[in-house]
Amino acid sequence: MPKYKIKIEYDGCNYVGWQRQNNGPSIQAAIEGAVLSFCREKVEVVAAGRTDSGVHALGMIAHFELINNIYDPATVRKALNFHLGAQPIKIIDTEIAPDTFHARFSAIERRYLYRILNRPSPPALDTGRVWYIPRKLDIFKMNQAAESLLGEHDFSSFRAKDCQATSPVKTLNMLKVSQSNDEIHVAAHARSFLHRQVRNMVGSLKLVGEGKWSPSEVERILLAKDRAVAGPTAPSEGLYFLEVIY
Amino acid sequence: MPKYKIKIEYDGCNYVGWQRQNNGPSIQAAIEGAVLSFCREKVEVVAAGRTDSGVHALGMIAHFELINNIYDPATVRKALNFHLGAQPIKIIDTEIAPDTFHARFSAIERRYLYRILNRPSPPALDTGRVWYIPRKLDIFKMNQAAESLLGEHDFSSFRAKDCQATSPVKTLNMLKVSQSNDEIHVAAHARSFLHRQVRNMVGSLKLVGEGKWSPSEVERILLAKDRAVAGPTAPSEGLYFLEVIY
Repeated sequence: MPKYKIKIEYDGCNYVGWQRQNNGPSIQAAIEGAVLSFCREKVEVVAAGRTDSGVHALGMIAHFELINNIYDPATVRKALNFHLGAQPIKIIDTEIAPDTFHARFSAIERRYLYRILNRPSPPALDTGRVWYIPRKLDIFKMNQAAESLLGEHDFSSFRAKDCQATSPVKTLNMLKVSQSNDEIHVAAHARSFLHRQVRNMVGSLKLVGEGKWSPSEVERILLAKDRAVAGPTAPSEGLYFLEVIY
Repeated sequence: MPKYKIKIEYDGCNYVGWQRQNNGPSIQAAIEGAVLSFCREKVEVVAAGRTDSGVHALGMIAHFELINNIYDPATVRKALNFHLGAQPIKIIDTEIAPDTFHARFSAIERRYLYRILNRPSPPALDTGRVWYIPRKLDIFKMNQAAESLLGEHDFSSFRAKDCQATSPVKTLNMLKVSQSNDEIHVAAHARSFLHRQVRNMVGSLKLVGEGKWSPSEVERILLAKDRAVAGPTAPSEGLYFLEVIY
């Protein structure tokens, strides 16, 4: 009864998100389908994070258990990629995990990357992969604002209405804005996030970067514990589930 | 009669290449069409390089002249992008150029980037944007081989059959292989290249990286001045026209 830990890269554009749903194709269902095609076992593939529709992953981690079959990890990787076919979902690493490993509960840090294309013209090559913002952003001010969100806080102001977390208190280990040419990256690290927390924080940081809000406004918003006072949600297309620390 | 210098980013996947042709859509025709829609002038858009079908550009430079209209550069950029619509071709910069400027003849160096994805699994996010090579490449040996191609040489061994250059002698200023995680980049700089020279050089470097050829084999191939002895042409999808130095 081996447990497989898999690392997954995917393009979230044409999916309803990670989680299996009735209203369209999900990453989870695609991988579970590939496992079924491969070895006729009906498994549940459990991921470290449940990304929303349109959100991408460069290194999502998930696990599943096989009951009747044992394969070496490379065989599993190749077989799943074969059965995933032309879908933009690829298993980029596979290993046997100890029985105690749980992709979701064993994670001690989740890392997201948010990509912004900050230039006067829209993307030709990265359509659907970045948030295109033509107005020049001030990343120094964005970083000032980001600092006020670091540490343990009640993040209700950045929490989606349908968030199922038991508590709005989370600990943000990193929120950093950097720039390389026309691209701005926001790195967000925490043990766990509220639903849409990263996109909601980025939506407010963008308003700071545009000069519509002062950096200190973001601290005021955090303290208000009210989603209505924060900025709009940044689009899903710029968000990448980057990696998990166990 | 202003001359406009434009910088263009494009995804070459669904185009026959830069140059206007009868057998399919070209980047040149798309931009000429956008100029016509914008100001009713039928212009020729002249580029620094004529990329093949499937080759991308991050910073292609081109110029065109208007006879009856004068606009400020930002207006031209916005209008062309508007008329290019959903096509994966974007004007990312525009300026007025002196009458003496010629996108092709004024160039003193052209810079290409070739992207290789070197890992066991195919790309999920970069399909059509990288050459996927599962077998681990030795970039140290690839760089050794690349060094033997630097400088002025008869590059007949790396020249496409239909190349229209008057001489096979070119001067390669840079050919450098670098790696970042799973991605290998080959940077190629020269005043000008023979037709498919970059892809043909990369095709041979790949065989060195896989250990099928020793680095010194590439020097032997260069000296043979015979296309038949060199490696196969690397696929178009990994090649990017990066920038031009004037």
